[in-house]
Amino acid sequence: MSENLPETWQGGPSWRPVARSRAHELVIEAIEDQIMVGALKVGDPLPPERDLASRLQVSRAGVREAIRVLEGQGVLRSNVGAGADAGTFIAAMPSEALTRFLRLHVALSNFRLDDVVDARVMLERSSASLAAANSDQRAREAIRGPLEQMDVEGISREEFNDADTAFHVAIAEAGGNQLVADMTIAIRASLRAPILEAFRQLEDWSQVSAMLREQHHGIIEAIAAGDGERAARLTEEHIRAASAALPALRSPGG
Amino acid sequence: MSENLPETWQGGPSWRPVARSRAHELVIEAIEDQIMVGALKVGDPLPPERDLASRLQVSRAGVREAIRVLEGQGVLRSNVGAGADAGTFIAAMPSEALTRFLRLHVALSNFRLDDVVDARVMLERSSASLAAANSDQRAREAIRGPLEQMDVEGISREEFNDADTAFHVAIAEAGGNQLVADMTIAIRASLRAPILEAFRQLEDWSQVSAMLREQHHGIIEAIAAGDGERAARLTEEHIRAASAALPALRSPGG
Repeated sequence: MSENLPETWQGGPSWRPVARSRAHELVIEAIEDQIMVGALKVGDPLPPERDLASRLQVSRAGVREAIRVLEGQGVLRSNVGAGADAGTFIAAMPSEALTRFLRLHVALSNFRLDDVVDARVMLERSSASLAAANSDQRAREAIRGPLEQMDVEGISREEFNDADTAFHVAIAEAGGNQLVADMTIAIRASLRAPILEAFRQLEDWSQVSAMLREQHHGIIEAIAAGDGERAARLTEEHIRAASAALPALRSPGG
Repeated sequence: MSENLPETWQGGPSWRPVARSRAHELVIEAIEDQIMVGALKVGDPLPPERDLASRLQVSRAGVREAIRVLEGQGVLRSNVGAGADAGTFIAAMPSEALTRFLRLHVALSNFRLDDVVDARVMLERSSASLAAANSDQRAREAIRGPLEQMDVEGISREEFNDADTAFHVAIAEAGGNQLVADMTIAIRASLRAPILEAFRQLEDWSQVSAMLREQHHGIIEAIAAGDGERAARLTEEHIRAASAALPALRSPGG
């Protein structure tokens, strides 16, 4: 890997060469600046790696590291190959990037579980009441699908948990606020592994799963009836009851 | 850059070599797996770059790209130098990473502004009422500091905007829920640039700033009085009034 960064600053007005040290951070900053002033929009191509390295006067490795970071944040998407679609583009993939982000930080216990549960209650109350106000037939069917899966006799805890996640995600999507939905999805997805582990440690699984099923049905009925207040209240009760019924969730590894 | 990735899979149980193509993604996955199972915790060092490359059988460039991505997500922190602190460690820096993430996606208009405002209302209502319930003297002084700055005669729009951001951030911190606070901070920070631009385009700045000042004082009084319901309501009214008073916020670039 060659990394020869001249100390001089040259180049056009929009892609000024960046100074040494942490070259990739300065490349990120240069790309972010272009996004913040609106010069780069979703779908726009980034200059080729070689080009960008030369304009910013950094190594190609530095450019590649910067591209990886922004890919990780769902801001860039790289298509391999040689066709017209090949190259690196400004993308719009906030949901999966946010999910990955929160999942890692929840796993690292950077947020207290009580805080995560309270944040979940706040977001899902809001999603449920938005879903009661805004959801159409199709959105409600997307909520009912995972509900029916959870009702199947003998479903495994893992399948149940996946359907449970899908149920809450579908309500968030039905609400129609994409930012609230993405945050809701990210938080529920970040809890997928710890909730599955807590399911596995339950001795009275059939009792708890029966309670969860019943609560889920109550929530969809309130949404279908357009009763936002009731949907929000039942959602809060459900999340708090589930959290209380899963002691292993409160003491990971315990 | 040499990138010789054997197709064979060898190695210990925890750091299995990864297959070719998108080497950095597979390194990320390997590190994430260790975090998800709890084998890597905050403060733990990552094996040296050279070591990790050899254990996972990928190039050092691939390892470095993966490290950059996880640094960008606030999950890793690299200390340069040769002392005992040198190296790459598991970190806990979700706030700044989340702020950068949301700022970029808001700038890319990946979220509708109405959705962002509604999400802000929901989060800040919650923060305000938590602050009324939980804040101590010190937290309330942290809220009053930027308030006094905004009251200074002849303050520039930029200084006002920075103090305004600090005011909302201090309320979020005072609420005591770190996840809610981080999301609130990230959303307000993501709006810093568009709000400043909207301030600049205002003809009746003195009138709008007087309204904002008055609303801010009402919010801190409700928080200091421990009246969570009133603090939440005034916060919602303030955010919606500010949003309505800033037409440029609704048509960026217009």
